[in-house]
Amino acid sequence: MKQQATLPQLRSIFLEYPASEKIYIRGNLYPFLRVGMRAVKLQDPEYPVYYAYDTSGAYSEGPVDIYHGLPRLREGWILSREDVERLPHFTSPFAQKMYESPPPTAFPHQHLPLRAKPGRGVTQLHYAKAGIITPEMEYVAIRENQRIEAYRQAGQKQPRFHRGQAWGIALPEEITPEYVRQEVAAGRAIIPANINHPETEPMIIGRGFRTKINANIGNSIVTSSIAEEVEKAIWAAYWGADTIMDLSTGRHIHEIREWILRNSPVPVGTVPIYQALEKVNGKPEELSWEIFRETLIEQCEQGVDYFTIHAGVRLAYIPKTLHRVTGIVSRGGSIIAQWCLAHHKENFLYTHFEEICEILRQYDVAISLGDGLRPGSIADASDEAQYAELRTLGHLARIAYEYDVQVMIEGPGHIPMQLIEENMQKELKDCYERPFYTLGPLVTDIAPAYDHITSAIGAAMIGWFGAAMLCYVTPKEHLGLPNKEDVREGIIAYRIAAHAADIGKGHPAAQWRDYLLSRARFDFRWKDQFNLALDPEKARAYHDETLPAENAKLAHFCAMCGPKFCSMEITHRIQEIAVKLGLPFAQFGGGEESVRM
Amino acid sequence: MKQQATLPQLRSIFLEYPASEKIYIRGNLYPFLRVGMRAVKLQDPEYPVYYAYDTSGAYSEGPVDIYHGLPRLREGWILSREDVERLPHFTSPFAQKMYESPPPTAFPHQHLPLRAKPGRGVTQLHYAKAGIITPEMEYVAIRENQRIEAYRQAGQKQPRFHRGQAWGIALPEEITPEYVRQEVAAGRAIIPANINHPETEPMIIGRGFRTKINANIGNSIVTSSIAEEVEKAIWAAYWGADTIMDLSTGRHIHEIREWILRNSPVPVGTVPIYQALEKVNGKPEELSWEIFRETLIEQCEQGVDYFTIHAGVRLAYIPKTLHRVTGIVSRGGSIIAQWCLAHHKENFLYTHFEEICEILRQYDVAISLGDGLRPGSIADASDEAQYAELRTLGHLARIAYEYDVQVMIEGPGHIPMQLIEENMQKELKDCYERPFYTLGPLVTDIAPAYDHITSAIGAAMIGWFGAAMLCYVTPKEHLGLPNKEDVREGIIAYRIAAHAADIGKGHPAAQWRDYLLSRARFDFRWKDQFNLALDPEKARAYHDETLPAENAKLAHFCAMCGPKFCSMEITHRIQEIAVKLGLPFAQFGGGEESVRM
Repeated sequence: MKQQATLPQLRSIFLEYPASEKIYIRGNLYPFLRVGMRAVKLQDPEYPVYYAYDTSGAYSEGPVDIYHGLPRLREGWILSREDVERLPHFTSPFAQKMYESPPPTAFPHQHLPLRAKPGRGVTQLHYAKAGIITPEMEYVAIRENQRIEAYRQAGQKQPRFHRGQAWGIALPEEITPEYVRQEVAAGRAIIPANINHPETEPMIIGRGFRTKINANIGNSIVTSSIAEEVEKAIWAAYWGADTIMDLSTGRHIHEIREWILRNSPVPVGTVPIYQALEKVNGKPEELSWEIFRETLIEQCEQGVDYFTIHAGVRLAYIPKTLHRVTGIVSRGGSIIAQWCLAHHKENFLYTHFEEICEILRQYDVAISLGDGLRPGSIADASDEAQYAELRTLGHLARIAYEYDVQVMIEGPGHIPMQLIEENMQKELKDCYERPFYTLGPLVTDIAPAYDHITSAIGAAMIGWFGAAMLCYVTPKEHLGLPNKEDVREGIIAYRIAAHAADIGKGHPAAQWRDYLLSRARFDFRWKDQFNLALDPEKARAYHDETLPAENAKLAHFCAMCGPKFCSMEITHRIQEIAVKLGLPFAQFGGGEESVRM
Repeated sequence: MKQQATLPQLRSIFLEYPASEKIYIRGNLYPFLRVGMRAVKLQDPEYPVYYAYDTSGAYSEGPVDIYHGLPRLREGWILSREDVERLPHFTSPFAQKMYESPPPTAFPHQHLPLRAKPGRGVTQLHYAKAGIITPEMEYVAIRENQRIEAYRQAGQKQPRFHRGQAWGIALPEEITPEYVRQEVAAGRAIIPANINHPETEPMIIGRGFRTKINANIGNSIVTSSIAEEVEKAIWAAYWGADTIMDLSTGRHIHEIREWILRNSPVPVGTVPIYQALEKVNGKPEELSWEIFRETLIEQCEQGVDYFTIHAGVRLAYIPKTLHRVTGIVSRGGSIIAQWCLAHHKENFLYTHFEEICEILRQYDVAISLGDGLRPGSIADASDEAQYAELRTLGHLARIAYEYDVQVMIEGPGHIPMQLIEENMQKELKDCYERPFYTLGPLVTDIAPAYDHITSAIGAAMIGWFGAAMLCYVTPKEHLGLPNKEDVREGIIAYRIAAHAADIGKGHPAAQWRDYLLSRARFDFRWKDQFNLALDPEKARAYHDETLPAENAKLAHFCAMCGPKFCSMEITHRIQEIAVKLGLPFAQFGGGEESVRM
């Protein structure tokens, strides 16, 4: 086994994108806000710049010392609200021990935790309900708009855009801070932002916004190291992950998480039951509420932004899974189910759910209600077990709302195409429009090594139907732990799915990128085409495989068709002839066939 | 430039699939029929074998000498109908010259062409209308069923299958020869099978059948050789292409096509205007009906099974494309449009369409009515030009039907998700349910180097909605000519899309493969899982990247979760406990929350 405790070799990381400049937009309500975006410089005579939504944080501004961690962007905002206090020590004895006697693998700069003052609400949901627009809300509003104003100036130059619509919700022309507040207050969107993860750049998950994607990273006992996982986290943010989940189940779970949190510009999610299980040496029946509770607090104080909690796996539902083809395929779900059966007791996450909410509200940790009984094969899709759990998740979501805890709902899994819409609609109805966070879904089981594709199909569809965040699947799914290249492949496949969904549901800014790239393509501005691509590096490399010369970047053809057969070049000639003929004003006669049978 | 006239290095090709055996099913109506299938041997205690639809032809039975070509499977069937005659020479002077004085690049074994006897109908549509079930029809019926009988024996072991339904058509439980005949007679399906391509194993394209995929190959002036293209053709059949299109536009077009035809077990399509343009040195305005006609006959007599003909690009529609973002992106469409404008005349393919039908019916070459005005960007999707042409294609399809010429309709292109269903429904209505053969569609423009994924999303959806054949897109689309690895990536992405569509539209055999693979996954039969995968080699390689040892193929975990966190292994333990508890018969109390607000 290749397990190592290797620390990162690289101290300083600076991520660059081609032809791009990091720019910042100031806030209006909060002038201290600086919302980072990526300005892609173009040779387009009409549109010299494209503003891309940027998840890469400070890494694309300049070098970041990962032994020190990212700037603590939100710390001032949080402290100035005067509703939190810094604790003198970690509440979890385990975390306190790690703080007092850090092992050699520990992150070097630790911070004592913040917690809500007694009786105070510190969650974004609490503020939203109270009518308060927080800096976090204005931040996401600015971020979501992607400088729509810049495009507005284009005026009548705008092409025919297709404005789709998500089920039951119309996206506004412009995302305002007040719209953000309303969506959060209604529970239709969440801003995962633990007060102990001030490094996060605020982002929002809800179907009234840009569709988000999550990248799962984390080691297993079989493979990977601290260094590899920190690198994957930053790499994921570079390629466009909106959140990451640290699903480590191997060694050094606490330390890996600390390294990731201090260096992650995007919210970090975890599944706390994994670490709890590690603490009882991998024996599910030895789990207890007390061990889980301690782990929960440990992770709240470390700064995790959202927890997957499998509170919907009720004892009564377990028999419904016994005749399945693939049983229970959620790791957390199977652990809980084994505990329930071994003790013949109701799931302790369910019975202690209100206590969980009481803990999480003090740190503003969001809950991602885990779908422990999601189908793991097409044959098991949309069965009784899955839908029974979904209804319970809706019930729990309402309880969390009473506690001002932000909630999203996890979704499948493996679902054939014809059932995807049904899945989305049931979620909206049974879970009161809470954001749906789905894993794919995979639309077939038969393509291991290509499950980023099988699942991107389902993800694009469910995103269009209204899923708020899509959890990526890499080519290694079902086969092994993803490496860096797999992470990149998974993220690009999901950026495609999310973007297609955004066009489908009518995000006002989405189609601009397609438009600008297509203009570049038609004008043979090869470099613009590469630079606007989701993966500029690979686009360029593929082109250069056959035509590497620098002047081929201006050529009016590529290796696919060659100079004589390029349809776009021929269209340019057609347009020249058309101008001579006075077209399109002089129309030709002889239109459509008059006889239609 | 790397253009070469290299002949294939490899003389003999034998393609093997892991744990597979080539088997043959005999015909009932025609006992001489031997329909090849791939029997995948499994360690499944209930199902020891899976019968896969097999496109690889004789290459998976034993070595094929590609300097000799494939066995001429259908020659006897064709001759025994006594409605064709062998010509003493090629009708096309160009082809005759190639026959008499073959260049060194020529395929060594040439055959004089067959043609319908005067006044006789030889197309599958002709026979179908006349109530005749041909050997070709029984062949495809057997092939489509994929040994459904074998699965039927499973009886009540069958899992809960999801039977979706395509728009306006219900797939039968079993594909019978008579059903095939009816679908062909109605024009809802075609069997592309030129009497001069007896090497083809018959296959059917129609939405009442398994969704098919096409792989485009062929050189450009910039790159590739004869050897590379023949290899790509066989490689494409190996990975699962149902048809291939030779889109060569570079040198040696005639010879490349001959090499491909004599070695292709799947139907071959071309776009004859490409070769016609080569004959006038790449100058569209010098094209003429006479040159095109000669090329058409040359290719009919060589054995091409279907032609893309851009007869719907009418002069009057060209002005509708002038304000597009990406103009005309079909190569054939742009060539024709330039000709129309230069001469200020109606498209000669439109004005001579009945003569085209008269030629094609003598060889049973099917027409794929090209969508010369398809949108090449999201902004141009579903515009007036596209839909005007579609209606004209419907008009032409009816003319072809009168001539007993089989027809399918080509479709887009770049279409956002929310417009895909509309595109399919318009095609069904405007083109009288002729098979729809779509290129993707790509659901976004922003991912060059990943357009196999952007388009697989649209392809899966339109396949579910009723498209009959999906033309693949490779990762090199928009960037360069695909190489062998790109062909493989494109085909697998499209096999995924087509299979997902088949599940969605309720193909009775489709979900079996998912079921068997998921069973293998749950039982930790790793080798079965690999062998049932669309790409066994890559699935195995990905697994072995972290766990290469032979005994890991029996392990109850992989590198993703490790031994303690494998949900499937935990489910096995849950099932053991359940048996002890007498579950699932003893249900637990405490089901769903009673209060539902």
